[in-house]
Amino acid sequence: MPLLIKGGRVITATDDQRLDIYCEGETITRLEPDIDPAAVDPKTEIIDAAGKLVFPGFIDPHVHIHLPFMGTHARDDWASASRAALAGGTTTLIEMICPGPDDEPMTAFEDWRSRAEGTASVDFTFHMSVVRFDELAQRQLRQIVNDHGIASFKVFLAYKGALDLSDADLFACLSLAKELGVIVTAHCENAGAIDAMQAKLVSEGKTGPEFHEPSRPTCVEGDGVTHLATMAQLTGAHIYCVHTSCDEAVNAALAARRRGVNIWIEAVAPHLVLDKTYAELPEFEGAKYVMSPPLRDKSNQAFLWNQLRARAISTIGTDHAPFDFEAQKKALGRDAFPKIPNGIPSVQERIDLIHTHGVLSGRIDYQTFVDACSTQAARIFGLYPRKGTIRVGSDADLVVYDPNKKHTLAHKASHSNVDYNAFEGWEMTGKSEFVTVRGKIQARNGQFVGETGTGRLLKRKPTHF
Amino acid sequence: MPLLIKGGRVITATDDQRLDIYCEGETITRLEPDIDPAAVDPKTEIIDAAGKLVFPGFIDPHVHIHLPFMGTHARDDWASASRAALAGGTTTLIEMICPGPDDEPMTAFEDWRSRAEGTASVDFTFHMSVVRFDELAQRQLRQIVNDHGIASFKVFLAYKGALDLSDADLFACLSLAKELGVIVTAHCENAGAIDAMQAKLVSEGKTGPEFHEPSRPTCVEGDGVTHLATMAQLTGAHIYCVHTSCDEAVNAALAARRRGVNIWIEAVAPHLVLDKTYAELPEFEGAKYVMSPPLRDKSNQAFLWNQLRARAISTIGTDHAPFDFEAQKKALGRDAFPKIPNGIPSVQERIDLIHTHGVLSGRIDYQTFVDACSTQAARIFGLYPRKGTIRVGSDADLVVYDPNKKHTLAHKASHSNVDYNAFEGWEMTGKSEFVTVRGKIQARNGQFVGETGTGRLLKRKPTHF
Amino acid sequence: MPLLIKGGRVITATDDQRLDIYCEGETITRLEPDIDPAAVDPKTEIIDAAGKLVFPGFIDPHVHIHLPFMGTHARDDWASASRAALAGGTTTLIEMICPGPDDEPMTAFEDWRSRAEGTASVDFTFHMSVVRFDELAQRQLRQIVNDHGIASFKVFLAYKGALDLSDADLFACLSLAKELGVIVTAHCENAGAIDAMQAKLVSEGKTGPEFHEPSRPTCVEGDGVTHLATMAQLTGAHIYCVHTSCDEAVNAALAARRRGVNIWIEAVAPHLVLDKTYAELPEFEGAKYVMSPPLRDKSNQAFLWNQLRARAISTIGTDHAPFDFEAQKKALGRDAFPKIPNGIPSVQERIDLIHTHGVLSGRIDYQTFVDACSTQAARIFGLYPRKGTIRVGSDADLVVYDPNKKHTLAHKASHSNVDYNAFEGWEMTGKSEFVTVRGKIQARNGQFVGETGTGRLLKRKPTHF
Amino acid sequence: MPLLIKGGRVITATDDQRLDIYCEGETITRLEPDIDPAAVDPKTEIIDAAGKLVFPGFIDPHVHIHLPFMGTHARDDWASASRAALAGGTTTLIEMICPGPDDEPMTAFEDWRSRAEGTASVDFTFHMSVVRFDELAQRQLRQIVNDHGIASFKVFLAYKGALDLSDADLFACLSLAKELGVIVTAHCENAGAIDAMQAKLVSEGKTGPEFHEPSRPTCVEGDGVTHLATMAQLTGAHIYCVHTSCDEAVNAALAARRRGVNIWIEAVAPHLVLDKTYAELPEFEGAKYVMSPPLRDKSNQAFLWNQLRARAISTIGTDHAPFDFEAQKKALGRDAFPKIPNGIPSVQERIDLIHTHGVLSGRIDYQTFVDACSTQAARIFGLYPRKGTIRVGSDADLVVYDPNKKHTLAHKASHSNVDYNAFEGWEMTGKSEFVTVRGKIQARNGQFVGETGTGRLLKRKPTHF
Repeated sequence: MPLLIKGGRVITATDDQRLDIYCEGETITRLEPDIDPAAVDPKTEIIDAAGKLVFPGFIDPHVHIHLPFMGTHARDDWASASRAALAGGTTTLIEMICPGPDDEPMTAFEDWRSRAEGTASVDFTFHMSVVRFDELAQRQLRQIVNDHGIASFKVFLAYKGALDLSDADLFACLSLAKELGVIVTAHCENAGAIDAMQAKLVSEGKTGPEFHEPSRPTCVEGDGVTHLATMAQLTGAHIYCVHTSCDEAVNAALAARRRGVNIWIEAVAPHLVLDKTYAELPEFEGAKYVMSPPLRDKSNQAFLWNQLRARAISTIGTDHAPFDFEAQKKALGRDAFPKIPNGIPSVQERIDLIHTHGVLSGRIDYQTFVDACSTQAARIFGLYPRKGTIRVGSDADLVVYDPNKKHTLAHKASHSNVDYNAFEGWEMTGKSEFVTVRGKIQARNGQFVGETGTGRLLKRKPTHF
Repeated sequence: MPLLIKGGRVITATDDQRLDIYCEGETITRLEPDIDPAAVDPKTEIIDAAGKLVFPGFIDPHVHIHLPFMGTHARDDWASASRAALAGGTTTLIEMICPGPDDEPMTAFEDWRSRAEGTASVDFTFHMSVVRFDELAQRQLRQIVNDHGIASFKVFLAYKGALDLSDADLFACLSLAKELGVIVTAHCENAGAIDAMQAKLVSEGKTGPEFHEPSRPTCVEGDGVTHLATMAQLTGAHIYCVHTSCDEAVNAALAARRRGVNIWIEAVAPHLVLDKTYAELPEFEGAKYVMSPPLRDKSNQAFLWNQLRARAISTIGTDHAPFDFEAQKKALGRDAFPKIPNGIPSVQERIDLIHTHGVLSGRIDYQTFVDACSTQAARIFGLYPRKGTIRVGSDADLVVYDPNKKHTLAHKASHSNVDYNAFEGWEMTGKSEFVTVRGKIQARNGQFVGETGTGRLLKRKPTHF
Repeated sequence: MPLLIKGGRVITATDDQRLDIYCEGETITRLEPDIDPAAVDPKTEIIDAAGKLVFPGFIDPHVHIHLPFMGTHARDDWASASRAALAGGTTTLIEMICPGPDDEPMTAFEDWRSRAEGTASVDFTFHMSVVRFDELAQRQLRQIVNDHGIASFKVFLAYKGALDLSDADLFACLSLAKELGVIVTAHCENAGAIDAMQAKLVSEGKTGPEFHEPSRPTCVEGDGVTHLATMAQLTGAHIYCVHTSCDEAVNAALAARRRGVNIWIEAVAPHLVLDKTYAELPEFEGAKYVMSPPLRDKSNQAFLWNQLRARAISTIGTDHAPFDFEAQKKALGRDAFPKIPNGIPSVQERIDLIHTHGVLSGRIDYQTFVDACSTQAARIFGLYPRKGTIRVGSDADLVVYDPNKKHTLAHKASHSNVDYNAFEGWEMTGKSEFVTVRGKIQARNGQFVGETGTGRLLKRKPTHF
Repeated sequence: MPLLIKGGRVITATDDQRLDIYCEGETITRLEPDIDPAAVDPKTEIIDAAGKLVFPGFIDPHVHIHLPFMGTHARDDWASASRAALAGGTTTLIEMICPGPDDEPMTAFEDWRSRAEGTASVDFTFHMSVVRFDELAQRQLRQIVNDHGIASFKVFLAYKGALDLSDADLFACLSLAKELGVIVTAHCENAGAIDAMQAKLVSEGKTGPEFHEPSRPTCVEGDGVTHLATMAQLTGAHIYCVHTSCDEAVNAALAARRRGVNIWIEAVAPHLVLDKTYAELPEFEGAKYVMSPPLRDKSNQAFLWNQLRARAISTIGTDHAPFDFEAQKKALGRDAFPKIPNGIPSVQERIDLIHTHGVLSGRIDYQTFVDACSTQAARIFGLYPRKGTIRVGSDADLVVYDPNKKHTLAHKASHSNVDYNAFEGWEMTGKSEFVTVRGKIQARNGQFVGETGTGRLLKRKPTHF
């Protein structure tokens, strides 16, 4: 059934126009100032977007859905995560494949893919985590890139002994990435420093969630970025620092950029609107706000926004990682903060948080908003122009957004399978009214109205040579 | 006569597509993968762009054409400058209005406008230099912005006693700019330092062109940027540093950006491809290479390219300022370098220089090339989307470019009215074949084929609130 | 009468020794582990320093005593200021000579000198402020340096139209300083920015003392340091940034040092222990805490202490400027903060504040304490080794200090002629017991016990070539 | 036999005085303007130092003498190294104890000590390298510190798999150092990066000595410093970066210092006067100039000197590591640069090189020269005031230096057991005439005249709490 979105203000990373959008099949086929509804296929569904904004479907370049973590699992599956994403205006998710250190890459890829295929209601792709780099792994990684269209790796400088690579493997992995044209996303915190600090703090009886940040202060993240950038400078690989939380880390990245390193920077919604005082909330409630890198001193927020406005930070993701507060964060981490499962779920809330605290507060404009929340993710990760923009031929992933709609974030409205909402009671202005994926309306007014399992794996071509 | 550009690879700041372009009247009316020549107006002129690139018309945000300078005048008029621009693929020029310190702004504006209107063959607008800031000047500046659509100012921190503003006036000027939403472009070199250094060097008998750079070393430019940024931080004004030549100046700008200052950075072609050894050429030939800020140590070039690739530097202009070598630079400056008229003409050469030394050498990609040489100038200076991109409704300013064409830069091919070419003998790859302004072919293969005087003043709306 | 200080722990900028000190006439004549009291001149006065520390007399390189300021005068004269200094362990003061813009330098020098001579009870010298630079001024400045032993200048980048120099004069003044080997101390805040901000804030009704800091934020000070450093780089002059208050200013100085500029940095006691919340105290009490550069956000303190510990900041002075709260700060500044006379008197409190908050809190060690509060001032300003250390032949300026003595700062104990104490009620640990100047005991336990007017002008030789 | 040094200009890190020095036994007992030779012990040997400078004996805080390295050994023993040191004015050496990864620390300590004791003719101590950190090692390290007076550790971030510690061990080692008050000296180059780069370059056939620098570019050293500083920030340990070669590494250290890390910086003579073009000399002669960190681009030299002048860099050592050119560097490294034994011997040349290229060229003054080449090493490493200065009670380690003596560096004048002199033919101004250790003349005019084996192990107390 064709779709006509009429009367909206169409906003992309570069433009702001009054245009009607006509979608047939899965793509946008017409984009014109005035499309006569009487002159199109009579079966066309017409959405009145007068007074509304129309954005390209938002992309979250950094989510966890299936996530084994220290003996437990994150709570979402692709059905719930898709509903949450769509309710919030996000139409494409890039999930981290997170194998254990002994798993074969191909097995992990197949596992993660099979969980998404037939269950996801948004389109999706993966960053392939590289946690081993023996010959078998290398061979399979080549296959995963070349045969399966997974054009990005993920490496960890954190999570000592579990996920981090030796320097030799890191160098080799970056060299392979350069050869294949694959960008390497990286969690940049120095693993050894964290391990030692965690042990030290716990041994001193400092076991509460408020010690999570002191166990990995900003210098640990700056150290990680510096090290990754060094390796990238030596190999020529293109790198992408995920969830950069602080001045010190961003500055390390910008210093590398001055030396010619091809480095991109991601912020995530929690660091932009929350600070470390949340992790210090009493009665263990701070555990709701434990993620890594941790929430920081508030002074870092202005810095991150400034760099977003200047487009020195390219993307805003979430690092959505849905663990329950009671049964997981509290139950497992009660004795010692290093055991609190990490993550602040926000895949549903991201767009409204950034709209309210970024756009409406004047920190960024609408173009930067779309660029950071959709277009850049598409460009950097090889999805553009199929995703990330509104133009003829692109997938009809669209968000009709009411910029004036006031609402309150609440757990009861959450689709993610977790037992709390980190932003409970926050007042928002702006909300998605209609969300389409490839021409089909998947959400209306925050409710999933689509068909579960219609999401598709997006094959991507390497572009980072 | 309609125009159909068929078979080209259409490249914008964001996209790279195989599209045909149909232009009717002055604008682009269709943009489609395949437009049937048989189905369009039979009068349509068809350009075969197979194997060619199609760019939006390039914009030079920083040129001087009518330029009184220390008792002489630059050699171009709008007829010659337009021919040079068009030959090189540039379809819009932003000229600096440069009144003397006692001139009334409105008189200057009318003078500059009248020289362009009816003579220019490219579209044009102006940056309004603010060299006095009394009440009359303020009143006229408001008129110039509001009634005449000139949405950018120019201030000088250099040229002591002639063009520079007092700090009080600079602050007030920036405050007015903030109020009006006008961006302030600025020449950031500390005037007092230069004056003193020039006097010192000349008094020591150091009078040759090779002492021009030592009279205004990089710290003088860094100082200027720091000072402008301080004033912008206090007033909230948006600023744009023209012709930034070195690491130290760019770093000062980036430091300001970290603090939240809204600052844009311009590079110009000469600093990207020439270094200070040119100004040290014997037999006074160095004078050909005297501009301000001066050509720098070569190590600054890699830094500028790195920042362009990262889009931290937004634009590439020329600071085209056409003075003759023999009759002006040599005749006037022979006794002492401070009297050498400043400028390295490159309005015709810019695009081919950047294509050859930027794109083909792998320093920047085609999107960044278009962004820096066209789109950003349009966005920053309020010309977008009329100029700076290729889309339906935009002016049909188009460049059909042969990326493989080899040619040699030479004075004999120059359209600018000067007696030398600073790049004489340089081998280029890539050349404009067809250049259109609002749907009319104005240049073919480096020759002007249009009608003189058809250029139009572009009214702009302030966007920098 | 000879003096024998027995049993003390003698601490200098480099050493920490158990030594007895014997003073004859005005100098130290013996420095030995054990001087037999029975074997010296029987008239010798013996001070038992067992359990005490013995420091070289402290030097305050930055005080105002006679200070005309916007139609009023600071409250101290050399008698009161000397008593305050001596009570706190300071035996040498360097006062700023602050002529008006039309005064002749020599007249000003004679005026300031005559006020000190015969009244001062500490030794003294001056920084000669350069607020005009015509030919007469230059001639007299040469005389003041060469004939009168004043080997340091002071320039203002702040105080627009009153004290600041044009860039041409600043350059010329620095060039003269380089020629004469004179160091140039400088107040580095951009004058024009402050003037404009003051006018803006006042026009918005923001007239209270809490707006003093926002009228000259850290960027204004960073700008000043950058500009001074640029001029120093061009001229080769040695410079000294007085009362550096913030991260941004110190970083600007360190950046200049990396480029080879010979630059020294001074902190003053108020910035090390007070922050801007004091200037926000209600009922206009904030006016007590108005000085320039203003008290800053508390985060700057750790940074200043870190740089002191690393000896990147060389000296700790006071910028003592004694204005009454009621009759001056309040009476004159009530209507608008720009009229509040600037200054936080601390010439008496400096040493105990730094001992308590610097040494005892572990931020700096005793050597750094002596270095910053005495030795470096002597070295930088040409008083070493006559002042600033303890060795045979040096002036017998000595402080016997009880590091464990607890006391409370209070106005009633102040010797400075002002009506308040900015540190009222602060608990201190450590106090001077005996303070000698050239072998005579001038203060005991915070009381002046000497003879008024015995201080001497110290002739200095230029050392900064 | 007592010693009287008469008529010299005595220069320390802080002072410059005309003093006679009288030494009895092993120490300085009198230091007076004029000691009457007729009034002292008639057996006194009198040295006429008129027109000469007298320095405290120089200390080299970074030498290798016994050095097993990839299957071979450095060529010096303590007899030859002592002669070389003394000939050049150096009276104390701090040698690196370099055990293999499986050696017990105590065994290594005993081995290194036994080689020095009875053979050394200068006084000596050691930095204890920590290359393993199991329980036995920890226990022995405590003994070595507490019982044997070795108050400094050395750790390697370079030399992967041989000498580098895991992050866990590095953290633990720094924590132990903090507990014991021991400073940790560190070779800061990232081991993994170097290994990978070496393999890569060699695999590409880039095997000559000119590829040594590209195998460990400046970013690798900056990375190392950043990482060490991170670990120091977390543990509170005091750190000392040895042989810092470049802008990037020093800046990383200064950035850490701004954050409060207690970090000291060492430069070594080769990096101050040689650059990487030496390692590019043809016929494999470049191998003479292979050390790590490598010789750098010449632009780094000015930066290092600037930081020395500002005393941001504390010390100048040598990293003396005496390998033969023909039999070792060439024979072993001919096939591939990673096998070239590292080191540029300069223990004999250091003082004259720094005097000529530092002091006489105006880059540093005499106080900074003494501070960097003697005093700071004594202060930082717990030898002060026994060593590092000239005062009553200090060891009579003295250098009578002729600042005007011209001579030429040459292998034939070298006492070090190597077959080449890296500075062959360099013209020097300034030379040691007399060199004493604890009151005995050990060298005259570059010739050893003392008794071999009279050097003593210096017990040191930890001071870095």
